[in-house]
Amino acid sequence: MPTYTAPTRDTRFVVNEVLDLPSYGNLPGFESATPDMIDTVINEAGKFCSEVLAPLNQVGDKEGCTRHADGSVTTPTGFKQAFDQYRAAGWGTIAQPEAFGGQGMPHVLGFVIEEFVATSNQAFGMYPGLTNGAVSAIIAKGSSEQQATYLHKMIANEWLGTMNLTEPQCGTDLGMIRTKAEPQADGSYAVTGTKIFISAGEHDLTENIIHLVLAKTPGAPDSTKGISLFIVPKFLVNADGSLGDRNAVQCGSIEEKMGIHGNSTCVMNYDGAKGWMVGEENKGLAAMFIMMNAARLGVGIQGLAQAEVAYQNAVTYALDRRQGRALTGPAEPQAQADPIFVHPDVRRMLMDAKAFTEGMRALALWGALQVDLTHKADTEEARQEADLMISLLTPVIKGYGTDKGYEVATNMQQVFGGHGYIAEWGMEQFVRDARIAMIYEGTNGVQAMDLCGRKLAQNGGAGIQAFFKTADEDIAAAKDDAALAQIAEKLEKAVGEQKAATMWFMQNAMANPNNLGAGAHHYMHMMGIVAIGLMWLRMAKVAQAKLAEGTDDIAFYEAKVTTARYYADRFLPDVGALRRKLEAGAESMMALQADDFATAA
Amino acid sequence: MPTYTAPTRDTRFVVNEVLDLPSYGNLPGFESATPDMIDTVINEAGKFCSEVLAPLNQVGDKEGCTRHADGSVTTPTGFKQAFDQYRAAGWGTIAQPEAFGGQGMPHVLGFVIEEFVATSNQAFGMYPGLTNGAVSAIIAKGSSEQQATYLHKMIANEWLGTMNLTEPQCGTDLGMIRTKAEPQADGSYAVTGTKIFISAGEHDLTENIIHLVLAKTPGAPDSTKGISLFIVPKFLVNADGSLGDRNAVQCGSIEEKMGIHGNSTCVMNYDGAKGWMVGEENKGLAAMFIMMNAARLGVGIQGLAQAEVAYQNAVTYALDRRQGRALTGPAEPQAQADPIFVHPDVRRMLMDAKAFTEGMRALALWGALQVDLTHKADTEEARQEADLMISLLTPVIKGYGTDKGYEVATNMQQVFGGHGYIAEWGMEQFVRDARIAMIYEGTNGVQAMDLCGRKLAQNGGAGIQAFFKTADEDIAAAKDDAALAQIAEKLEKAVGEQKAATMWFMQNAMANPNNLGAGAHHYMHMMGIVAIGLMWLRMAKVAQAKLAEGTDDIAFYEAKVTTARYYADRFLPDVGALRRKLEAGAESMMALQADDFATAA
Repeated sequence: MPTYTAPTRDTRFVVNEVLDLPSYGNLPGFESATPDMIDTVINEAGKFCSEVLAPLNQVGDKEGCTRHADGSVTTPTGFKQAFDQYRAAGWGTIAQPEAFGGQGMPHVLGFVIEEFVATSNQAFGMYPGLTNGAVSAIIAKGSSEQQATYLHKMIANEWLGTMNLTEPQCGTDLGMIRTKAEPQADGSYAVTGTKIFISAGEHDLTENIIHLVLAKTPGAPDSTKGISLFIVPKFLVNADGSLGDRNAVQCGSIEEKMGIHGNSTCVMNYDGAKGWMVGEENKGLAAMFIMMNAARLGVGIQGLAQAEVAYQNAVTYALDRRQGRALTGPAEPQAQADPIFVHPDVRRMLMDAKAFTEGMRALALWGALQVDLTHKADTEEARQEADLMISLLTPVIKGYGTDKGYEVATNMQQVFGGHGYIAEWGMEQFVRDARIAMIYEGTNGVQAMDLCGRKLAQNGGAGIQAFFKTADEDIAAAKDDAALAQIAEKLEKAVGEQKAATMWFMQNAMANPNNLGAGAHHYMHMMGIVAIGLMWLRMAKVAQAKLAEGTDDIAFYEAKVTTARYYADRFLPDVGALRRKLEAGAESMMALQADDFATAA
Repeated sequence: MPTYTAPTRDTRFVVNEVLDLPSYGNLPGFESATPDMIDTVINEAGKFCSEVLAPLNQVGDKEGCTRHADGSVTTPTGFKQAFDQYRAAGWGTIAQPEAFGGQGMPHVLGFVIEEFVATSNQAFGMYPGLTNGAVSAIIAKGSSEQQATYLHKMIANEWLGTMNLTEPQCGTDLGMIRTKAEPQADGSYAVTGTKIFISAGEHDLTENIIHLVLAKTPGAPDSTKGISLFIVPKFLVNADGSLGDRNAVQCGSIEEKMGIHGNSTCVMNYDGAKGWMVGEENKGLAAMFIMMNAARLGVGIQGLAQAEVAYQNAVTYALDRRQGRALTGPAEPQAQADPIFVHPDVRRMLMDAKAFTEGMRALALWGALQVDLTHKADTEEARQEADLMISLLTPVIKGYGTDKGYEVATNMQQVFGGHGYIAEWGMEQFVRDARIAMIYEGTNGVQAMDLCGRKLAQNGGAGIQAFFKTADEDIAAAKDDAALAQIAEKLEKAVGEQKAATMWFMQNAMANPNNLGAGAHHYMHMMGIVAIGLMWLRMAKVAQAKLAEGTDDIAFYEAKVTTARYYADRFLPDVGALRRKLEAGAESMMALQADDFATAA
């Protein structure tokens, strides 16, 4: 059975040394995140996830969720008890506002917990995970009455939330939804329609479930400008906060899917269910994006998560399994064969995974810091800069993070050879679970267009310029340091390629917008590789400084510098190839007609 | 439910126009492959696979195989009837020698059938597929008595064969096998041991199963120089060819695995089973490689196969599913939304799939032609040249073909968005089935080392030199043709990168063999991309000539030229990046120690 150990040492390195969280102690919420508190959160969350959630991961996959004839759903054995522990420990409340019962700590720590939870048990993590998105929307757009009614309970995870967007005929194009919301005399709405792919749509973990539902009011425009957001609780809430009548919303069925079997992916039927509008009529899309952006960062972390757990188990296997001999001569002549760890092709896969997971962790937590600074930085300018940066990074973290996460999980399965294909080893589950993250909360093609069609141009390109500026500064500062110069030069070349690609977009997207669409995926990958490259330069710099000043932990910091070099050697070269693909433009991609794709007889 | 239409038009193009099979009519076996016969085989095999095997693909995945208490195994509903039809039509006999009841036709046609079968139902195709490997070994190494006893029945698919190599403690490193073969007074051996991952190890499709088993005789050297190959039939065969006693070999269990559920992957227990040695004692590895090479080409075709069927279904979905609008303005303003086919990112994935599958088909069939010429070319020199070429291409077809095939299947699943993750659409099965091909018959890491550590240097590098020579000639001939010049120039650049990488290996592998191991995967991918690029240049040239001379099928040939341009734009740039990775060498990859990979507390 696969195991999971939370990467607490590496996380402390990123949080304390690379991001230097304690240095933000003057900002609200950060003051309580003392070094001691940070250590406690990281260690205790890590322990809980490794010991309680990880052992349930295979159970969830095997058992799945069970829908009963009355529409109720039972989660896999052990999930409810584990969720009770999760709730009791308050893991879901860490970064939520104190005004609604949260602990008000930095999102950086919230992301740490999200990573550990998603890594130990992605299907489990989705139950509270989706709630975060719903909570964000109610905080941003809900009335004070709605906030009073729902937020404390949801933040405390006494109730969980869902996001109901997709319908059979539409997912990406939400202007096409058909779910109707008819206004009622009491100010509520009667919501009727069918939603599909609703993660955690029905379950037995909490006594109530708060559905956030996109629907159309009568006469609403037939586009995304005509959708509104509604709160539809499973049980109505009485004035005193107690539960009232069962609402007319039901789980119609649970989808049979490739993975994340431990999460109940439901078809939800609304049959005149009582709902209340969140925010303004026909402005549901904006509220939806608030949910979505929170969720997208969480999904990016899932990409990291499945890569991480697959990597940990592949390392164990590679050190244990013996086949063949090192190319340089027997490493352990007394044994019948060497551990496969000695083989360069195995090491290549492990190093790729190490370079991605550690770099991606730094990127995700840097992103989390931007989320914090968006709300808490001490000047408006700093808040706006952080907001631009996280807007830009969100599709990259989601899109590149999950594409590469899936690739790494697949490679880690490969380390196991035939055993990787056998269910009991657990590696194939990681691949199946990782696969969904490239699809949900906006497919990675949607992420690429969000990045290139929207985020690059935002505020006259201020976000991408700020990104290049910070990269240029770090590169310039590192080029004089002999230990970092090579890494910095390779990163400089890659940043140069990305700048050229950005320029190419500016020069060619107007003439033919398909030139943008044709290169968006390439650009998203370029930026993901460059952004993680920047994280590696920063990590190598911190490590180098530690080694220079003297440390007990020489091996740890030396490994950081070596892995940064590996990243520069093996990841950054792709940026040039991606630029060449991008600059090929849309012509050969879009030239063929539908008939040309038919399998001719 | 997904569907499959055999790509008969494209196959005829490759066989008749690109390879020009009819021009080999002077060679033995080719004379019966008249244009009419070729068309008939392609069309009838295509029909059978589309109509009979494809509808059983999802059934096989859902039902899997069932082992009963007595060790017998039932295949999924419909498999036995379909197999009876397959056998009756003689699809398995096409390219087998006439001396043993085969039809003696070119392997090119055998590969065509293998592709169609694997595409319509990979799990089904593995039953007769493994038999081909076993047959090859008996033809090459079996005694005339063994050939008389087994070959006719196996070639006629009245009996099927298996390959028993892997044991719990070893797969790649077969020197470590523990299965014992004790010589008996009657000249037979008593075979005892446990084999795992035995595809088609036990089933109900045929009355007998002929196991080819690697085992060690008493006192054999403790390495690959101490393994011998044995025939162990499920039922002993009497002198008159009738079936005798049940042998002491049993299916102990069926593995639970990620995919190919329709195939029975068995743990096989040999308990003093009666076996007969094939070839010489302690020379089993050579015989094993004969089985293996046939099987590896078949596995490469599986990579193409899952990409192809996933592609066909993704095209259908992309033309049917409507979401959003074309970036250049509504394509179908009267409809509520445009088909997702208009979106560049969807088209990118479809074009990638089209460029890979059609190019890979050409490469696999060119490879098949080399197999034919190895045996049938009219000069010893030509036979040897073909043998070198297919030796070189085999790990590329297997390794690159399955890596890229899996990637394409994954992308085609992505076209479906959320529906791609749901079992009933069938796309996730293609991905799960495609995954095994990167692992079995030698993991792709083993393929990469076979290519770089063995094949590149074979006969003083004669194979790779011949490959470069044919590429150079085709490029030189195409550069003067305006329609092909750009493609040829991009391919020339890529070939140049591969030559440089080859040189780098020569200069750096001696000093440190890990430099070879560290770059082997990159080199295998470089060569796969270049080899398919060469196929695209050839296809574009044939298509261009057809367009110049006039044809009724303008769209087909124009699409070939456009897809060749797409391939040059979007695939070839990776070759340069792969070279840079390869030339980074082993240093940063191998520098870390085992402890550096531990998740420190």
